[in-house]
Amino acid sequence: MIGQDIIARFSALLGPKGVITDADDIAPWVNDWRERFHGSAAAILSPASTQEVSAVVKLAAELGVPLVPQGGNTSMVGGATPPADGSALILSLRRMNAIRSLSTDDNLAVCEAGVILSVLHDAAEAAGRRFPLSLGAKGSATIGGLVSTNAGGTQVLRHGTMRALVEGIEAVLPDGSIFDGLDALKKDNRGYDIKQLLIGAEGTLGVVTAAALRLVPAIAARAVGWVGVDTPADALRLLRLIEERLGDAVEGFEVIADDGLGHVLSHIPGTRSPIETRTPWHVLIEVDHADTSEPGPAARLEDALAAAFEAEIAIDAAIAANEAQADAFWRIRESLSESEKAQGPALQYDISVPVAKMPAFMVDAAAAAEATFPGHTASSFGHLGDGNVHFHVRAPKGTEDGPAWIAAEGPAINRFVHDAVVAAGGSISAEHGIGQMKRAELGRLASPARIGALRAIKAAFDPYGLFNPGKLVPLSDEA
Amino acid sequence: MIGQDIIARFSALLGPKGVITDADDIAPWVNDWRERFHGSAAAILSPASTQEVSAVVKLAAELGVPLVPQGGNTSMVGGATPPADGSALILSLRRMNAIRSLSTDDNLAVCEAGVILSVLHDAAEAAGRRFPLSLGAKGSATIGGLVSTNAGGTQVLRHGTMRALVEGIEAVLPDGSIFDGLDALKKDNRGYDIKQLLIGAEGTLGVVTAAALRLVPAIAARAVGWVGVDTPADALRLLRLIEERLGDAVEGFEVIADDGLGHVLSHIPGTRSPIETRTPWHVLIEVDHADTSEPGPAARLEDALAAAFEAEIAIDAAIAANEAQADAFWRIRESLSESEKAQGPALQYDISVPVAKMPAFMVDAAAAAEATFPGHTASSFGHLGDGNVHFHVRAPKGTEDGPAWIAAEGPAINRFVHDAVVAAGGSISAEHGIGQMKRAELGRLASPARIGALRAIKAAFDPYGLFNPGKLVPLSDEA
Repeated sequence: MIGQDIIARFSALLGPKGVITDADDIAPWVNDWRERFHGSAAAILSPASTQEVSAVVKLAAELGVPLVPQGGNTSMVGGATPPADGSALILSLRRMNAIRSLSTDDNLAVCEAGVILSVLHDAAEAAGRRFPLSLGAKGSATIGGLVSTNAGGTQVLRHGTMRALVEGIEAVLPDGSIFDGLDALKKDNRGYDIKQLLIGAEGTLGVVTAAALRLVPAIAARAVGWVGVDTPADALRLLRLIEERLGDAVEGFEVIADDGLGHVLSHIPGTRSPIETRTPWHVLIEVDHADTSEPGPAARLEDALAAAFEAEIAIDAAIAANEAQADAFWRIRESLSESEKAQGPALQYDISVPVAKMPAFMVDAAAAAEATFPGHTASSFGHLGDGNVHFHVRAPKGTEDGPAWIAAEGPAINRFVHDAVVAAGGSISAEHGIGQMKRAELGRLASPARIGALRAIKAAFDPYGLFNPGKLVPLSDEA
Repeated sequence: MIGQDIIARFSALLGPKGVITDADDIAPWVNDWRERFHGSAAAILSPASTQEVSAVVKLAAELGVPLVPQGGNTSMVGGATPPADGSALILSLRRMNAIRSLSTDDNLAVCEAGVILSVLHDAAEAAGRRFPLSLGAKGSATIGGLVSTNAGGTQVLRHGTMRALVEGIEAVLPDGSIFDGLDALKKDNRGYDIKQLLIGAEGTLGVVTAAALRLVPAIAARAVGWVGVDTPADALRLLRLIEERLGDAVEGFEVIADDGLGHVLSHIPGTRSPIETRTPWHVLIEVDHADTSEPGPAARLEDALAAAFEAEIAIDAAIAANEAQADAFWRIRESLSESEKAQGPALQYDISVPVAKMPAFMVDAAAAAEATFPGHTASSFGHLGDGNVHFHVRAPKGTEDGPAWIAAEGPAINRFVHDAVVAAGGSISAEHGIGQMKRAELGRLASPARIGALRAIKAAFDPYGLFNPGKLVPLSDEA
C-alpha cells in the first residue's frame, strides 16, 4: 500500500479537493460496477486541469507510483480497476468536466475527459445537433473513458465508433508532456497517427484529458421497423437491400434471435412482440432523416420492406405507428440482457467477425457450442451490420449457482468461443476492450507480430509500466 | 555502397527475377520523379510474395542492411528515394501486383501493395463499384504507397483519406514477422490500432504488403457546377448550405482563386471560364448519386444554388449541361499546377488548418506573405471542405532561374508559411507526408510531446533504423 508520505506529495500539488483518502469515498471506485474485479487504492487523485494532470504524472514518474486513469468506472473488462495490492493510485478525471466549446459552425464539441456522455447529449441537443454515440452507461460513462476504450453502441453502422468521431485529442503522456492535438484537422500527415494510437489504448499509454468530438445534425424524422426473418443470412440480405435503397439513412440495424425475444416477453412486464408471427430471427431497423422532406423515413422504409417481401426475405414486418411504439420496439432490444439475467446465468462474449461471415458464425458457433457443452444453450444478438454480436452461452436449465458454474465451465467455454472467433478471422473484443478480463486470452491467441507490436508500443511510451498496470498488453512472463 | 557479396545473399533468396542490379534498370528509381532528391542503390530487391518480403527483411536485419520500400515512386516529399551514399537497398513491391479478391457482397478489394491505383479503379468499375480515391499519379502510384502515405485527393470530403478506406492491412514488420490484419473487422478493440499506425508511416515501421480496401457504389448520375463568390468565407458558407441540402452526396468541393483561373485560361489551350463574371474566388462542386431516382443531382444542385443566390453567397453560377462540359470544368481544376508552371517558378505548400479558420488563413496568410516578400504573389486553391489547400508563393515576375530563386528565398519563405500554419493550429503536411523534404521543419515545429512520441514509436518498431532511413522522424541530433 502506498504510504502517507507519498500521498502528501500529491496533496501538496493538488490541494485538499484534489486528493481523496477517505475509505468510504474511495470504496465505490476500487471495484468494477459488475463486482467482478476487486482492487485497492490508498487515494484517488483528482486534478482539475490538464496542467495539474501533467504535474501529477511527472511526480508519479519521479516517485515510481503507478496510476490507474478512471472516468465513470463503467468498464466491462475491469479496465479501470486498480491492482488488488494497493500498489497504484487512481487518477480520476471526473473533476475535469467542462465542455470547453461547442460550435455549430464546425459541428465540434471540445469536451474535457470527465464530461459525462449524457451531459454532452443534452448540450448538443440544446444546440440543435447530436453526438451520435450512446450506450447503456451514458449517465456515468465519461468522454475520456469512451475515447480510451474506443466505445461503440447501436449507431456505429452509420456513424462509426469513437475512432471515427474523435477529431482531435489532448493527452498527458507518461513523461508528463502534454500532447496538444485538439485542433480538428481533417487531413494531417505529420507522421504516425498519435491520436488513433491513444484512442482505445485504455489509459496504458498516457491519459486523455480532452477530445474534440464530431457532432451531426439532429434527427428531424425517424421510422422504426421490426422484421421477422428466417435466418441471419436473410437478415444480412435485408441489410444490403435496405442500404441500397436508403443509403446512409440507416441508423440502426439490430438482429435478435427468437429465444432472446422470448426472454423479454416472459420477463419484462408490458412488452409485446411487434409482429404476430414468431419467426426464428428478428431485425430492428431505424431510419433517420435530418430534414422533413418527402418521402420521409417511414414511407421509404415501407417501400424497402415491400421489396424485401417481394424478394422473400421478410416473413412478417411492422413499422411503428408513432414515437411511443418506436420506443417500445427499442425497449425490447434494450431489455435483452436484463431478461436473460432473469432466465439464469450466462457467459457473454463481445466478439466480431467479418460481416459476410457473421450469418454462418451465428448459426454454426451456437450449434457447436451446444454440442460441445451439453445442456447449455447459445445464441446471439446485436450489430450484424458491424460484424459484431453479443454471443451468449447460457448455463443448463435449473443452474442456480452462477459463480460455481462459471468457475467450473467458464475457462473451457471461453476458449471454445474465442477459438471459433479466431478461426473465422475475428476479434475477441469488438467493443469492450481487453482490460484485465481478456488479457490472458489475447496473449494466447494474438499473432507474434501483433503481440510484439503491442509490447513494443507500450514499452516505448511507458518504459516503467506506470500507466494502468496489468491492463491490455499481455506481458511476456504471462504468455 | 553495398557490396556484391551482400547482394548475392539476397539473390539466393529471391532468384534472378527478384534482384535488379543493372544500372540502367535502377536509374529511374533512385531519384524522385520531380528530380529534387537524388539517391543511389546497388540493387532493387523485388520479392513476389509476402513470404519473400519476410525473408528479405529477416536477412536485411541479420546483415544490418537498410531498406527503402518503394511502390510507384510518386512521392511528393522524397519519401521513396534512397540515401545518396548507396548505403541502402530499394525494396520494390511492384511485382506483388495481384488483386487477391474483389467482393461486391462485402464491397471489399484485397490488393497487394504493388497494384497500381488505376488498375484497381478499372477492376472496381468492371464489378459495378468504385474505389473513391484518385489523384494525378494514379497511373503509377501503388496501393502500398498510397496506404503508407495516407493519400488524399479530391474525394476526401465525402469518402475520407486512405485512413478511412483501409479496412484491413498485411505488413512485414522490421523483425520479419508478418502482421496479418487483412480480415476487415468494423469493430476490433484488441488494443492499440496497429493498422492505423502503419497507415501514413511512410515505410518507416515496416512494409505494407497488402490492404483490404472499401469499395462504394458506382456513380449513376452526377452534376458538376461552378460558382463565383466574393471571398473564401463565402465559399465556406456555400459549402455549409450545400451540405445541409445535399448531405453526403457532395463528392467534390474545390476552391480556386481567380488568379489561378486566369493562369489556366492564359496557358491551357481550349479552356474557357464556366461563368461570365470574373469573381475573386471560384468553387467547383460535384454532386453524385448512386441511383437514378428523382430529383437527380442536377435538379438538387440547382435548387441549392438558388438558395445560395437568395442568401447572396453566389455571384454567378453554371451547372454543366452534359458530361463533356462537366469534364471541362474539372479540367480547369486539374490544370492549375501545370498552368502555374508556365507562369513562372513557385513554392508549393500542402497545408491544412481547421476548416473554420481556413477562409481567414487563405486571405491573411497570402497578404502577409506578399507584404513580407515584396514582388512575390501568393494564393491558394484546393479542398476547402477538408481544411486543406495548396498554398503557393510565386517568384517575382520575370524570375527566370527558378532553382537560384528557391536557394535564395526558399528557406525564409518555408519558415514563414509553416509558422503561419502552426499559428493557426494547422499541419505542415496535409496530404503529401514528411519524407525527406519536411523532416527538418517537422523537427523545428512539432511539440516535444509529438516528437517524443514519433521517436519512441520508431525506436520501438525499428531499433536499428533499417526501415526507410532518413524519412519522417526527426532525429535528435538534427533537432
